[in-house]
Amino acid sequence: MKKVGVILSGCGVFDGAEIHESVLTLLALDKANAQAICAAPNIPQHHVLNHLTQKESVGESRNVLVEAARLARGSILPLDKLQADQIDAAIVPGGFGAAKNLCDFAFRGAAFSVLPELAQLLRALHQAGKPLGFICIAPAIAASLFGGEGVQFTIGSDPGTAEALEKNGAKHTRCAVTEIVIDRRLKIVTTPAYMLARSISEAEAGISKLVRAVLDMA
Amino acid sequence: MKKVGVILSGCGVFDGAEIHESVLTLLALDKANAQAICAAPNIPQHHVLNHLTQKESVGESRNVLVEAARLARGSILPLDKLQADQIDAAIVPGGFGAAKNLCDFAFRGAAFSVLPELAQLLRALHQAGKPLGFICIAPAIAASLFGGEGVQFTIGSDPGTAEALEKNGAKHTRCAVTEIVIDRRLKIVTTPAYMLARSISEAEAGISKLVRAVLDMA
Repeated sequence: MKKVGVILSGCGVFDGAEIHESVLTLLALDKANAQAICAAPNIPQHHVLNHLTQKESVGESRNVLVEAARLARGSILPLDKLQADQIDAAIVPGGFGAAKNLCDFAFRGAAFSVLPELAQLLRALHQAGKPLGFICIAPAIAASLFGGEGVQFTIGSDPGTAEALEKNGAKHTRCAVTEIVIDRRLKIVTTPAYMLARSISEAEAGISKLVRAVLDMA
Repeated sequence: MKKVGVILSGCGVFDGAEIHESVLTLLALDKANAQAICAAPNIPQHHVLNHLTQKESVGESRNVLVEAARLARGSILPLDKLQADQIDAAIVPGGFGAAKNLCDFAFRGAAFSVLPELAQLLRALHQAGKPLGFICIAPAIAASLFGGEGVQFTIGSDPGTAEALEKNGAKHTRCAVTEIVIDRRLKIVTTPAYMLARSISEAEAGISKLVRAVLDMA
């Protein structure tokens, strides 16, 4: 049974991991008879947003790992306890948490950087020839880490976002919501999901394909 | 396009709506070309549990509607604004929130009662001949409201829970996780999901069948 790290960034689209994308990733892995090992950094969220009003919940603090544990039904590792040799692949669902907690692309644009403990894990997996999947805005992380190798990726069709992410050498490809972009040379798979999805089924179509492509290369 | 109310009780298995069950309900509805209308009561959660430690987060308060908005990506109604004539059916996913926030079965056992605004909506739907679906522990709500009509339901296979819920006249049927119990006379469908599920795929199998059965009667 292949083991796949699922890297979560909280629990909720506006300040954490996108819930539908995360659950659909877990579902597709389970249906493919792969074992998901959820992990999240044990750090404070950048902020907490009220998902009803989209306003910041001033003075409130939540921990990325503790909130991500909701998605994992309590079965989750601190990211720094997940070692590259424990897993055959890793997938990073989207949501603003990927751009606020796992990196700071949401705030710094092209000059952003990736959380060091995540960068270390993903680079180790990549160097070991293990495939990586990135969903929605999470491909920003791939563009940052593997831009120097000219990684091909998609975040859907937004030209401004794509351009900001290409500054490091990464190459953006436009992609429909139900499709994926596979960089076979670097074993990196990306799909737009809720960068474009108008429904959960649209997100599901792309995410299922991404999971299959990642497992095929694992 | 059929419209189905999805009644959420927070966001997280231990103090709110079970996330996988809620997302799988939304996925099955969307795949069946039905429109989900999410709603949740605008009340404080009974409590907040840290999902990593399962310990109570003492002094912390969260609102059921605000947290449920995470599951609905912000698109959610306060439960008292959802009228029976707006929808063709309703489904209540499980999680402890169903037994802590939508009713108090988790604390009071057989002597529990259902949140009045939810009882009012579900009774109005039922009186209008519209089908209802209940997942995991949420069938407790059906047993309470429709026990007097002898509703047939399942919460899986736990004899203690089943017995407590039968006190009002409801009739429990043992049911495998991938199956459903349909009370065709009362148009009420139930499935065990994470009362029994060892994996998200097992939960998905039962929930998909429940959604199809509810839509077939709507």
